[in-house]
Amino acid sequence: MTTPWTLARRAKRLNPSTIREILKITERPGIISLAGGLPSADTFPVQALRDATAEVLRDTAGASSARAALQYAASEGYGPLREWVAADLNGQGLKVDADQVLITTGSQQGLDLAGKVLIDPGSTVAVESPTYLGALQAFAPYEPEFIALDGDDDGPLPDALDAACSASQRARFVYLLPNYQNPTGRCVPAARRLALVQRAAELQLPIVEDNPYGELWFDQAPPPPLSAAAGDGAVYLGSFSKVLAPGLRLGYLVAPRALYPKLLQAKQASDLHTPGFNQRLVHEVIKGGFLREHVPTIRARYKAQRDAMRAALAAHLPPGCRWQTPAGGMFFWIELPAQLDAGALLPLAVEAGVAYVPGSTFYPHGGHANTLRLSFVTAAPDVIERGVQLLAQVLDSALSGPLSGGNR
Amino acid sequence: MTTPWTLARRAKRLNPSTIREILKITERPGIISLAGGLPSADTFPVQALRDATAEVLRDTAGASSARAALQYAASEGYGPLREWVAADLNGQGLKVDADQVLITTGSQQGLDLAGKVLIDPGSTVAVESPTYLGALQAFAPYEPEFIALDGDDDGPLPDALDAACSASQRARFVYLLPNYQNPTGRCVPAARRLALVQRAAELQLPIVEDNPYGELWFDQAPPPPLSAAAGDGAVYLGSFSKVLAPGLRLGYLVAPRALYPKLLQAKQASDLHTPGFNQRLVHEVIKGGFLREHVPTIRARYKAQRDAMRAALAAHLPPGCRWQTPAGGMFFWIELPAQLDAGALLPLAVEAGVAYVPGSTFYPHGGHANTLRLSFVTAAPDVIERGVQLLAQVLDSALSGPLSGGNR
Repeated sequence: MTTPWTLARRAKRLNPSTIREILKITERPGIISLAGGLPSADTFPVQALRDATAEVLRDTAGASSARAALQYAASEGYGPLREWVAADLNGQGLKVDADQVLITTGSQQGLDLAGKVLIDPGSTVAVESPTYLGALQAFAPYEPEFIALDGDDDGPLPDALDAACSASQRARFVYLLPNYQNPTGRCVPAARRLALVQRAAELQLPIVEDNPYGELWFDQAPPPPLSAAAGDGAVYLGSFSKVLAPGLRLGYLVAPRALYPKLLQAKQASDLHTPGFNQRLVHEVIKGGFLREHVPTIRARYKAQRDAMRAALAAHLPPGCRWQTPAGGMFFWIELPAQLDAGALLPLAVEAGVAYVPGSTFYPHGGHANTLRLSFVTAAPDVIERGVQLLAQVLDSALSGPLSGGNR
Repeated sequence: MTTPWTLARRAKRLNPSTIREILKITERPGIISLAGGLPSADTFPVQALRDATAEVLRDTAGASSARAALQYAASEGYGPLREWVAADLNGQGLKVDADQVLITTGSQQGLDLAGKVLIDPGSTVAVESPTYLGALQAFAPYEPEFIALDGDDDGPLPDALDAACSASQRARFVYLLPNYQNPTGRCVPAARRLALVQRAAELQLPIVEDNPYGELWFDQAPPPPLSAAAGDGAVYLGSFSKVLAPGLRLGYLVAPRALYPKLLQAKQASDLHTPGFNQRLVHEVIKGGFLREHVPTIRARYKAQRDAMRAALAAHLPPGCRWQTPAGGMFFWIELPAQLDAGALLPLAVEAGVAYVPGSTFYPHGGHANTLRLSFVTAAPDVIERGVQLLAQVLDSALSGPLSGGNR
């Protein structure tokens, strides 16, 4: 730079989001995007939100809900919403008091706050490999070293946690996404959850559990969250983005009492509080049990789209491609034949009319060029079918052409 | 802590907000709070916001504003709002393109992002003394050393900037609040602004300019922002909290092109984007020129309340108290006789039925126990008069009693 500005060292760890750059490309008309994790806009409860705004902005003399919603508010969040979250989580087996709930500006902010309060430059943080890119991006500016946990189709291996707690360097926490993980779609079975929690407790290794997709199950609910068994050894992150609408930017975290005050102070320093208007709006929508009726409609839609993608993948993808069928969430994770490079193929795919996210970006240490992520939540079944067909044509050409075996 | 959690070193720099703790006390019924900087809720344009929600949540087939408002969105912010901000600032003498505007979750987030991108542990940051507490809190977790700038009633002295640029340690930036500063209410005159910008440019010292109160002038608009003269040497922060409503948490920053990408990436990592719903709501309210009619009503109200406080202070405060009358903004800054300690007196004041913020908390290195901040924007004129009367009684007792000369 030719300016007087000197960047902090941590700014080197900030980089453009690959996914957001891809999303810009895929906004071009005519491209079928299986790339972004955008919830289907058809699921947004517009009428319920419209009714709720009328209620929240009701301006009656004496006790104006509107004036309170538009004023500065407590950093902890709106009391009734915190109580709703605590009750909801207690129903899932967690033991949570409302005063352990911190409302955040999306659960992405929960990741940032955890990083701010827990990571020193050079600290290690244990993560799944692959894992949620947004978490890597939230933690990165606090300059950790990432330890990639070995795993299998059921999630990280409990023994892998030992490597995160060596004599020389103990990880500040392990970041886990047990339900329908982004990007792999994998759900950790109950026995593996308990084994992970037990091993983490033995190692005194704290857990940061991220659960944005838990409600998006198709046939049966996932096992209880890790935090239900981990007690004070876990911070739990949740979100309204997938069950209501992401544009409201409303999430929450639940923290042990020993940690809560520092997370709260970090929240104050970051944005004072999450918009009170949004908090009251969402509470107004959900307080009467709205989600009990609404979420099943999202599940049914995404399940049909999951089925469409499963059928299309089976019908069209060339031999040598591997995938698991996710039991919930938003994503298929595809392993291509080893000689293919999903990053190198992306421009050809976009030219052919379909976009995806190369898998390499989800790995804390890169590599794994032959993987990619497909979302089934944004497009309708017939569009999914067409998109997968286009992708298969690109892969077929690559397998029979000179790009096969290419390196990036 | 008896838990497995290890805090980052920066967490030691996070502390409870004195003001927020005081605000909790002052929520008790019967206490007149002159403490908080809460805009008068009577100024919130509830009807205009209600109309705007109906428009933003309009759900027409094909081009649904509602669906777009509720979906994930660009980290930069909502395009038309960025254009509105750029046009507005160009009208104030800045040269700003819309692509230099980053919408933030309140201008507090702008401070956090500047700290994240610009401050290394041990970096120096030059600040006014006293200065906005929220800025000290936003910067503190990035572990800077604060350099307190010498100043007078017109603001910081240009020569004081030299001390921030010694051979051994160059400040990463100087943080300045030229319009009706929080906490002192002081407005920097035009000549001082130009002298500050010129000296900063000579020293190659970047400026972070914070302007939440600029629109709240009573008799004449303040001089142009520092950023109008500083060009690429300044980041400018603005807010809709004081001209519309703080509960929407909507602010913005304007950055030189060399710095913008890193601030944007820090924003992505922090909360992905500011709620699109709120951005479209505010744009819908203001796009037709609403603020041209609305802001003068806020000015008139606050001017009347400022006048009430000025009269009450002159009528009731004991000899030896000093204050300037602010020409805009929200605050009076009172210097008490040197032997009084505003922090020690606060419990007595609250017992008597009035609250304020002790001034010490606004100084980067503490001290100045004989100062306090009074807000005139939350309470009506008769309540202000009563509150100042109660405060004066507490001060009178202290001056004639054993607390005089006490230390905390």
